[in-house]
Amino acid sequence: MKILVINAGSSSLKYQLYNMNDESVLAKGLVERIGMDSSILTHKPAGKQEVSEVSEILEHITAIRKVLSMLTHEEHGVIASIEEIQAVGHRVVHGGEAFKASALVDDAAKAEIRRLFDLAPLHNPASMMGIKAAETNMPNVPQVVVFDTAFHQTMPEKSYLYAIPRVLYNKYKVRRYGAHGTSHEYVSQAAATFLDKPIEELKIITCHIGNGASVTAVQGGQSVDTSMGMTPLEGLMMGTRSGDLDPAIVPYVMNKEELSVSEVNSMLNKHSGLLAISGVSSDMREITEGMDKGEANATLAFEMYEYRLRKYIGSYAAAMNGVDVLVFTAGVGENSVVLRQKVLEQLTFLGVKLDAELNAIRSGEPRRISAPDSRVEVLVIPTNEELVIARDTHNIVTAANQQ
Amino acid sequence: MKILVINAGSSSLKYQLYNMNDESVLAKGLVERIGMDSSILTHKPAGKQEVSEVSEILEHITAIRKVLSMLTHEEHGVIASIEEIQAVGHRVVHGGEAFKASALVDDAAKAEIRRLFDLAPLHNPASMMGIKAAETNMPNVPQVVVFDTAFHQTMPEKSYLYAIPRVLYNKYKVRRYGAHGTSHEYVSQAAATFLDKPIEELKIITCHIGNGASVTAVQGGQSVDTSMGMTPLEGLMMGTRSGDLDPAIVPYVMNKEELSVSEVNSMLNKHSGLLAISGVSSDMREITEGMDKGEANATLAFEMYEYRLRKYIGSYAAAMNGVDVLVFTAGVGENSVVLRQKVLEQLTFLGVKLDAELNAIRSGEPRRISAPDSRVEVLVIPTNEELVIARDTHNIVTAANQQ
Repeated sequence: MKILVINAGSSSLKYQLYNMNDESVLAKGLVERIGMDSSILTHKPAGKQEVSEVSEILEHITAIRKVLSMLTHEEHGVIASIEEIQAVGHRVVHGGEAFKASALVDDAAKAEIRRLFDLAPLHNPASMMGIKAAETNMPNVPQVVVFDTAFHQTMPEKSYLYAIPRVLYNKYKVRRYGAHGTSHEYVSQAAATFLDKPIEELKIITCHIGNGASVTAVQGGQSVDTSMGMTPLEGLMMGTRSGDLDPAIVPYVMNKEELSVSEVNSMLNKHSGLLAISGVSSDMREITEGMDKGEANATLAFEMYEYRLRKYIGSYAAAMNGVDVLVFTAGVGENSVVLRQKVLEQLTFLGVKLDAELNAIRSGEPRRISAPDSRVEVLVIPTNEELVIARDTHNIVTAANQQ
Repeated sequence: MKILVINAGSSSLKYQLYNMNDESVLAKGLVERIGMDSSILTHKPAGKQEVSEVSEILEHITAIRKVLSMLTHEEHGVIASIEEIQAVGHRVVHGGEAFKASALVDDAAKAEIRRLFDLAPLHNPASMMGIKAAETNMPNVPQVVVFDTAFHQTMPEKSYLYAIPRVLYNKYKVRRYGAHGTSHEYVSQAAATFLDKPIEELKIITCHIGNGASVTAVQGGQSVDTSMGMTPLEGLMMGTRSGDLDPAIVPYVMNKEELSVSEVNSMLNKHSGLLAISGVSSDMREITEGMDKGEANATLAFEMYEYRLRKYIGSYAAAMNGVDVLVFTAGVGENSVVLRQKVLEQLTFLGVKLDAELNAIRSGEPRRISAPDSRVEVLVIPTNEELVIARDTHNIVTAANQQ
């Protein structure tokens, strides 16, 4: 079965075409600047040259039409006809409490995703545009939605409720949902496979550290707590997000600076984090370079980032009364040797023992970076959210076909 | 030297008269309902009967005058004349960055406390009323201010800065200050004394769990991190305070419910925490009773409270790369056998081993509740913030007299 995986943003659309017989990627690409001047489609067929095409793409419908013609293009294409695509899998950020797993797209599912616009006003409307665009271009192909929140729906009440009036949960569903669920699920399962141990017996802490970042406590294969909250603002310090904060600072600053709700949200989501403290960049590579040059603000930004990540690891070890496996993934988690080193050097109380040479190796493969006598296995596992989406789509469509 | 310790609230005033020769309390008491109808002065002289007196007390000046006449009263008094009081020590909630230690009250100190009204609008104006009232009644007696924040001024930047635009720190001093400093300082020092170990060599986590609650990481005798933030809202779940929260929930709820800044502050500080989740009480004793009766909401409130405290302990163990001593203090920390038990049972990964019998003993004395082979010493130490204030006042006034 060939499956097209789509990740739609408000002005962008990422795609990967999978051949599920061997889980290989036939092609992948990205449409940027949808609805703006000179949209760009970048397409990379497996084993062939990457191509770029600039044109005017006003809507997601057009973006997908362009992607489909590229996939079937004489020179750059990888399939003979659109008919070969047997299912489409969509990444959707917010599945609320309704979606505890991936689901086939039908009218009820679409209505529910629309109801969740309120909780994910930036993301779910974009996902819905992607779904509609795919339906329009491939009306007879089954579509599946895979949610960033679904993996965390196993959290117990004590983890997901906030200690605020219950009416806010009853009325607006204010609670912790978390995010990066497909990534935390993928790397925790990959960790168990790598270690050749049943995931049911493991206490795993997964650190998805990219521009957005979250930590999850995975016990027996289930998410029992995660650092992102009702929104992706809570938790770790990130590229441009503040992470945890005295909640009283929000009204204080709104009052002092006469900020509106959207202005304060913008400040905390787009102008905070590494960028605010370093004063120069939200990118860990540039922060690390600045630190190497002895720049004080870059060094402070790194120290805060590392310290807050380390505290979450300690916190989740306490949540599960121990930790067997620690996993680093995503852009920063997979690539920042120095971040991993600084975090792990200060976790010897957990029995963590880093192998500095293994930690320094750069590779796209799952690998162990702890010493053989480390009480905690520390792994670096490249994440693959698209593969999880493709697999879920494959399973759901196969099951539906058998009914 | 006899020292009067004063803790002034907006409509209340607590006092203790110390004889510093043996650090004994000669008398203590409380004036309630200042400025309201029928104020009450409750006075307890050491070794004598407690007395109450109802009268109209409109201002703090009158309250202190009443206290002074009670202290010198023929029947209920403990000193012959006001002249015996050689110094007054005041508890002040917020010392900002200016006060890294207790200080003699002079014009500069008063001006600084007034500048901090903005950061502690409910508390510092009340402290200032207490200071003025004492000055008016005892114009020639030296006064000392002891701050709830001072002990935490040793925190490093990475602990006290938030990952938000630096201009908010530069302009308004938005940062973590913490609270309960005198208590965290007292019990950490008492722990070292109890264990007969130099505090410089210890990693201590102090849990001050009362109606307000905070946890502090004390390394080498210094506060290196604490759970309360710019305000006492951040950190643990408390009697009526939410503690940690996705900061994005604040503008979301303000928008949905059309709440003002003061309304949302009131919701998070007075109508959240144990009270909101249990639906019945902010008092841990009633929560525990409800739990014993099998009430679901009381049980959930307890579980959230315990879980969040336990996570902070894990987080601060990671902050210091280990913990040697864990201290419980304040109303709930000293008295809730079941809270300590539930927290400690899930910290065996740290090497904590509880002695259930020792934990069940009720006593007003410092005591160990961990087993002899526990890797972490766990202590219950009754706090004594008034004694810290009396000692600081004694030291500062003695030093000033010698100059």
